Amino acid sequence: MKTRRLRLTIAYDGRPFAGWQIQDSVKPTVQGCLEAALQDLCGRRIDVQGSGRTDAGVHALGQVAHVDVPLLGGSLSRAERWAQAINVRLPEGVRVTASRAVAADFHARFWAIGKTYRYRIWNAPWLHPLELGRAWHVPYALDRARLRAAAEILLGRHDFAHFAANRGAGFEPRSTVRTLRRIKVGGRAPLLTLEFEGDGFLYRMVRLLTGALVRVASGRDDLSWLRGTLARELRKNHHQAVADGLYLVRVQHARPDRSTTAASPLTRDEGDPGG
Amino acid sequence: MKTRRLRLTIAYDGRPFAGWQIQDSVKPTVQGCLEAALQDLCGRRIDVQGSGRTDAGVHALGQVAHVDVPLLGGSLSRAERWAQAINVRLPEGVRVTASRAVAADFHARFWAIGKTYRYRIWNAPWLHPLELGRAWHVPYALDRARLRAAAEILLGRHDFAHFAANRGAGFEPRSTVRTLRRIKVGGRAPLLTLEFEGDGFLYRMVRLLTGALVRVASGRDDLSWLRGTLARELRKNHHQAVADGLYLVRVQHARPDRSTTAASPLTRDEGDPGG
Repeated sequence: MKTRRLRLTIAYDGRPFAGWQIQDSVKPTVQGCLEAALQDLCGRRIDVQGSGRTDAGVHALGQVAHVDVPLLGGSLSRAERWAQAINVRLPEGVRVTASRAVAADFHARFWAIGKTYRYRIWNAPWLHPLELGRAWHVPYALDRARLRAAAEILLGRHDFAHFAANRGAGFEPRSTVRTLRRIKVGGRAPLLTLEFEGDGFLYRMVRLLTGALVRVASGRDDLSWLRGTLARELRKNHHQAVADGLYLVRVQHARPDRSTTAASPLTRDEGDPGG
Repeated sequence: MKTRRLRLTIAYDGRPFAGWQIQDSVKPTVQGCLEAALQDLCGRRIDVQGSGRTDAGVHALGQVAHVDVPLLGGSLSRAERWAQAINVRLPEGVRVTASRAVAADFHARFWAIGKTYRYRIWNAPWLHPLELGRAWHVPYALDRARLRAAAEILLGRHDFAHFAANRGAGFEPRSTVRTLRRIKVGGRAPLLTLEFEGDGFLYRMVRLLTGALVRVASGRDDLSWLRGTLARELRKNHHQAVADGLYLVRVQHARPDRSTTAASPLTRDEGDPGG
């Protein structure tokens, strides 16, 4: 059957889901919900290939996936209309915010050239009730100047092996070198936001970077600890921020409308769960 | 037993609660949770008097209540410390954000001279998953210029009887005249926010005003309908926005630290649920 490839932009609340990837769990997964919606719409099984996994509890404002869908007539002849057709078949915790036609060899994971994650911290004695499940509650004082100084150390191209969790045998990446292009510290107190932009992220890397930055900003660890950990002279960092505060903001692709074979940075083909 | 009066500022997520006021319901109420926490802390029953009720599903950033608490020693000799002592006894959906000593005749309801409510509307084809229960989803187009023109009509001192729901015999206010000091239209699309500031609000008045403003902004009704409804030449408005998008932002009091007998505007002594 003739098909065409669509690029879907997807937003979800992480709380009702057992993460992105299909698995045996009591809670549904985002990928599973999308595949069920597409099966209902197309009458057959459609694989949904995401740009990477997100862990249970991690939110997304702009996850990206690709799908090969049959050439249907009517309103679905327009790629933009697929978003609505899928949404009416999804639970309310997940929505396709945009759908568009892409080249037949576009790949949500292999063609990704950048990702942005946001981490939200509620830095006050009590977590605001409307921030439950949406931010990490840090009740002790954090120094923004120290935080910025720590973020400076992490910027650039490094081997981030000591800021990655093990996923188990057979899942280890070929390389743990990544480039952090930007860490933006923002948010009006008591909200503190960290935005990480890079070419890719290792397993739980954003949560481990955030955990380390908060260690330094709180004065529990100093900049030399961070430098030593990054240089792998010290032990791996195990201070990990909770999933609640993490948001996959956007995924950048190299010209998704144009076919190319040069766009795939091989270091990222192990998937990129970031959370 | 000697007591002193405290003014509590309270934030809550409306979703886990059956509204502010204690009642027979499966879900807990905010007032009920506060009274249970204070009973646990003080070893006896303490009445919690709010500035007014909020309906089930309505959120609060700055609800205000007063309580008479025993004179305890230790850290609780400082009024500011009561917030923390109460919070550790509350479910995570409600928090006391501030506590302070006030005059013995301060009254959260009778001394209120102003309230601010915010209404959040998500104006897009689909509701963003992270806006579930936190905004009203309006999928059809709204014209902000028409919305502002409609808001102008409502501003000032009017009899808002046609923008109030009946609460039942014995609960009708003596007067339905209120002053709307400000309606601020804001929010970056697709979010649209309406902020209502006034001396008081009738039962469900904010939701009925919002429902009417959206009718006009969508073109389903025109400005003359709004004028005629306000003037009570037409029937009562029954277009009511959902509870999800409503937030009690703040309650203003006349010098809560100073005793006064002149601060009570009698028109507001029937309570002020706003939602």
